[in-house]
Amino acid sequence: MQLDCFKTLVDQYKVIFFDAFGVLKTHNSLIPGIENTFAYLRETGKDFYVLTNDASRSPEQLAESYVRLGIHDVVPSCIISSGMLAREYLDLKVPHGTVAYLGTANSAHYLETPTLKTLPISQLDLNAISEVNALVFMDDEGFDWNTDLTKTVNLLRKRNIPVIVANTDKTYPVSQHQIAIAIGAVAKMVEDIVGKQFIRFGKPDAQMFIFAYEHIKNYPTISKRDILMVGDTLHTDILGGNKFGLDTALVLTGNTQPEDAEMKIRSTGIIPTYICESAVVQ
Amino acid sequence: MQLDCFKTLVDQYKVIFFDAFGVLKTHNSLIPGIENTFAYLRETGKDFYVLTNDASRSPEQLAESYVRLGIHDVVPSCIISSGMLAREYLDLKVPHGTVAYLGTANSAHYLETPTLKTLPISQLDLNAISEVNALVFMDDEGFDWNTDLTKTVNLLRKRNIPVIVANTDKTYPVSQHQIAIAIGAVAKMVEDIVGKQFIRFGKPDAQMFIFAYEHIKNYPTISKRDILMVGDTLHTDILGGNKFGLDTALVLTGNTQPEDAEMKIRSTGIIPTYICESAVVQ
Amino acid sequence: MQLDCFKTLVDQYKVIFFDAFGVLKTHNSLIPGIENTFAYLRETGKDFYVLTNDASRSPEQLAESYVRLGIHDVVPSCIISSGMLAREYLDLKVPHGTVAYLGTANSAHYLETPTLKTLPISQLDLNAISEVNALVFMDDEGFDWNTDLTKTVNLLRKRNIPVIVANTDKTYPVSQHQIAIAIGAVAKMVEDIVGKQFIRFGKPDAQMFIFAYEHIKNYPTISKRDILMVGDTLHTDILGGNKFGLDTALVLTGNTQPEDAEMKIRSTGIIPTYICESAVVQ
Amino acid sequence: MQLDCFKTLVDQYKVIFFDAFGVLKTHNSLIPGIENTFAYLRETGKDFYVLTNDASRSPEQLAESYVRLGIHDVVPSCIISSGMLAREYLDLKVPHGTVAYLGTANSAHYLETPTLKTLPISQLDLNAISEVNALVFMDDEGFDWNTDLTKTVNLLRKRNIPVIVANTDKTYPVSQHQIAIAIGAVAKMVEDIVGKQFIRFGKPDAQMFIFAYEHIKNYPTISKRDILMVGDTLHTDILGGNKFGLDTALVLTGNTQPEDAEMKIRSTGIIPTYICESAVVQ
Repeated sequence: MQLDCFKTLVDQYKVIFFDAFGVLKTHNSLIPGIENTFAYLRETGKDFYVLTNDASRSPEQLAESYVRLGIHDVVPSCIISSGMLAREYLDLKVPHGTVAYLGTANSAHYLETPTLKTLPISQLDLNAISEVNALVFMDDEGFDWNTDLTKTVNLLRKRNIPVIVANTDKTYPVSQHQIAIAIGAVAKMVEDIVGKQFIRFGKPDAQMFIFAYEHIKNYPTISKRDILMVGDTLHTDILGGNKFGLDTALVLTGNTQPEDAEMKIRSTGIIPTYICESAVVQ
Repeated sequence: MQLDCFKTLVDQYKVIFFDAFGVLKTHNSLIPGIENTFAYLRETGKDFYVLTNDASRSPEQLAESYVRLGIHDVVPSCIISSGMLAREYLDLKVPHGTVAYLGTANSAHYLETPTLKTLPISQLDLNAISEVNALVFMDDEGFDWNTDLTKTVNLLRKRNIPVIVANTDKTYPVSQHQIAIAIGAVAKMVEDIVGKQFIRFGKPDAQMFIFAYEHIKNYPTISKRDILMVGDTLHTDILGGNKFGLDTALVLTGNTQPEDAEMKIRSTGIIPTYICESAVVQ
Repeated sequence: MQLDCFKTLVDQYKVIFFDAFGVLKTHNSLIPGIENTFAYLRETGKDFYVLTNDASRSPEQLAESYVRLGIHDVVPSCIISSGMLAREYLDLKVPHGTVAYLGTANSAHYLETPTLKTLPISQLDLNAISEVNALVFMDDEGFDWNTDLTKTVNLLRKRNIPVIVANTDKTYPVSQHQIAIAIGAVAKMVEDIVGKQFIRFGKPDAQMFIFAYEHIKNYPTISKRDILMVGDTLHTDILGGNKFGLDTALVLTGNTQPEDAEMKIRSTGIIPTYICESAVVQ
Repeated sequence: MQLDCFKTLVDQYKVIFFDAFGVLKTHNSLIPGIENTFAYLRETGKDFYVLTNDASRSPEQLAESYVRLGIHDVVPSCIISSGMLAREYLDLKVPHGTVAYLGTANSAHYLETPTLKTLPISQLDLNAISEVNALVFMDDEGFDWNTDLTKTVNLLRKRNIPVIVANTDKTYPVSQHQIAIAIGAVAKMVEDIVGKQFIRFGKPDAQMFIFAYEHIKNYPTISKRDILMVGDTLHTDILGGNKFGLDTALVLTGNTQPEDAEMKIRSTGIIPTYICESAVVQ
């Protein structure tokens, strides 16, 4: 397996799309040296966007988490999260009534519109559901799984409403050796039980990439050939980037370990354009 | 849709296999008139067995629940539960060590053998798992889903051990209008997350029927032609009975409503030999 | 079930997206009266696009098929087919070499670029595959399933290359009472066998809709609120339109029969904004 | 990875269950040295059975294929094939009429009963299907995939009949470096298209093992503890043997290569009791 130099790659593209976890940061710190990458992007005047399946916090809150780690380049306007797509959906398709949700109060900020009321499932009264016009799976925290998931199943048996999943991931890392179940896996269980089709937002889905593509400000007529997608996960970052027509770089600092990379690429058939040790410019 | 008379059917077979929920009883009471069926079986000297995917309680406890409702015919020896298959598996395949489980203390009785220690996941220390040689999903109660399911995922990432699912149902009724998520759906979510193959016991799997077939005492050389499987669910009772080579009767007192029966049979391709209003002998 | 008047709907939107089969035409004729719809669109100056999962022929050939039926409004530039997305993918992601394909010579026109050679699987020599850089499933005709599908499986075991599916449908109608297996179902079988991840283009995928959205010429700044998606199939037309944020109208002249519509909407959870008897303006 | 000595294993069990392909023979020859194993079994008076998902030929024809390779120990009565289970199903559940099938004339021998007529799909007239009471997928040869599979789909849309799959394998080896698509994969495609539930026979299903278990002649009261299942495939031989409660030995002469064995066991969670280089007694 031949590794490519990340700095050389950056030089070849006008805009870089980054995944967050496993590429820029880990569960509670930065990828060592990643500050050099931001400095190099600034210096060379390259645009970049962070595409994340994390809908637990708003772009403002996500940007703050980088500031706390010493990075001031990741401003809210360069963060594209799956929660923003959920919000656009509600804005276009659910004109009024109540949106029930599973997640924290922070995650519910995505759902607030002037005409929609938000309601955590825990506060839902199953005898007063005639105003509930949508359900959104936002985050794995903020509710009791034993009681609120069964409540969710019963809601969906009684009301035929759109169900949105704002994070399609199955798990996320919580420490170096442990993972936690993400809301995407929980939503899949409920979908299997009720037998209905949920609407998913997040990588590898094309809509995530379209959303980012349309946000590129400095290059209004940019070609897909000028964008590089950088990620640590074959099934989301690389598959989604490839399908959207972008060149893709797999980095080995997150979900894909150096010793497994070749085997995983061969067994999944998901082939990155490049493989780099990390997204660190040295 | 022509309905068959259940009494006439009973007369044609030597042994009857019954599903429990939706056939003999509902969430907290008997199917009205079912006592007549037991009286008729007694009178005509027919053998019967109850095949249930309920591993939450032992056959003795399940039998008691019928006694409390006034039925004394359902003795422990005529109850075949998926928990008994889980126990046989452990007995044959897991000679020693600890079996971790998700479920109530009642359900854990199935797992106790002279040489195996049982341990609820809630009490498991993830730093001391070298003796954990199997994991069993028994029941949806008795543990905290938020914390113990994530613990389960981390256990299965560290220990490559057999995982047994002792109840394959996705949901069960808790009142006339509400259902709850059963442990089968929860196990499926964990299986999808860890990407490993779990071992499932319960209808429609052939092993459940083999187990019952081998327990038929009074007719040591009985033919499958002399057994009728009676159930309310196409995907478990009828599919499993058909595949095992038994004649099958669908009753309309549980999961399959009279107005949906024909459509469901047509759309699933699961075809019962007979359809009866209920399993009540009139 | 209350039906909406299609003419009234057209009046409310600036641009209409139509599915083809079951909405505008059947297997070999027009939906009776659909010429009125085209006349009304012309008269009122509305833009429309035809979004089809049919990659068997080029937009020019597809447009000719309407001309033969007496419709001159469906010009090539208003046809968006999944084959065009396959072509864009190859153009962006497969710079040189050979593209092997399953389909007719007509369907292969999509794949031709100045730098890529196309090769039907039937002519592939499994001992000379080093130049084969992509495989595309285009159409169910033009190859021998017994021999060429096995050849395809062996190619994919030896070469780790991107595989594109240019039509995700499972079946298509060939006469009033018979259907045929579409290439989407065949591709799914091969994907299951080789265990790799294929890249699919076609409704309900967002990329099909963004492709059409970007082709809207007369309204460069049109809002999604001004577009109506019209289709006969819940899982492709309606699900895809909804997810992309469009209002959707289900018509009952194709895959969804009037007597099944309500039940299908309830059981799938895919909810059209409107239901119309047909797309005919009366 | 520590390897176990196959001879030592044989000494510990009374009865051995063997898979055929990849354990006893390859596509056109014996596993080198396997004649020693048969000699040792004869010498020590051990019973053995061959459990195969191959329904393309009768046990008599399968036994002849061993004779041609110089092995006279594999007599018809020790061969258990999935075709025998399909036949038992028809015998018990389909009393009269016509059984349509996909496969060769050889494979149809399994289906013949005094009261059932067999009919290859190629000869089926879709306008005269009222007597067709079952459909069986037997073998990948003997029919034209392009036309007969579409015919099969249309038959199943018109007749709601039981569908039996007599070989659940997805592929089989045809030479050292090439595989072919098996009828199990084809049946799965048709099942996905028509949305109905097919009935599958063959490993890893318990019914295959109980069929063999009930055929053990010399030890009428044998315990499952005295039987060893030997196979080369984790998902069929080892999973099925484990679930039935047998000890299992994985051999590395077929589907599981020595360099992949540990990784596959870890990633699937299917854990053989033993791992042996081969089933050859040395």
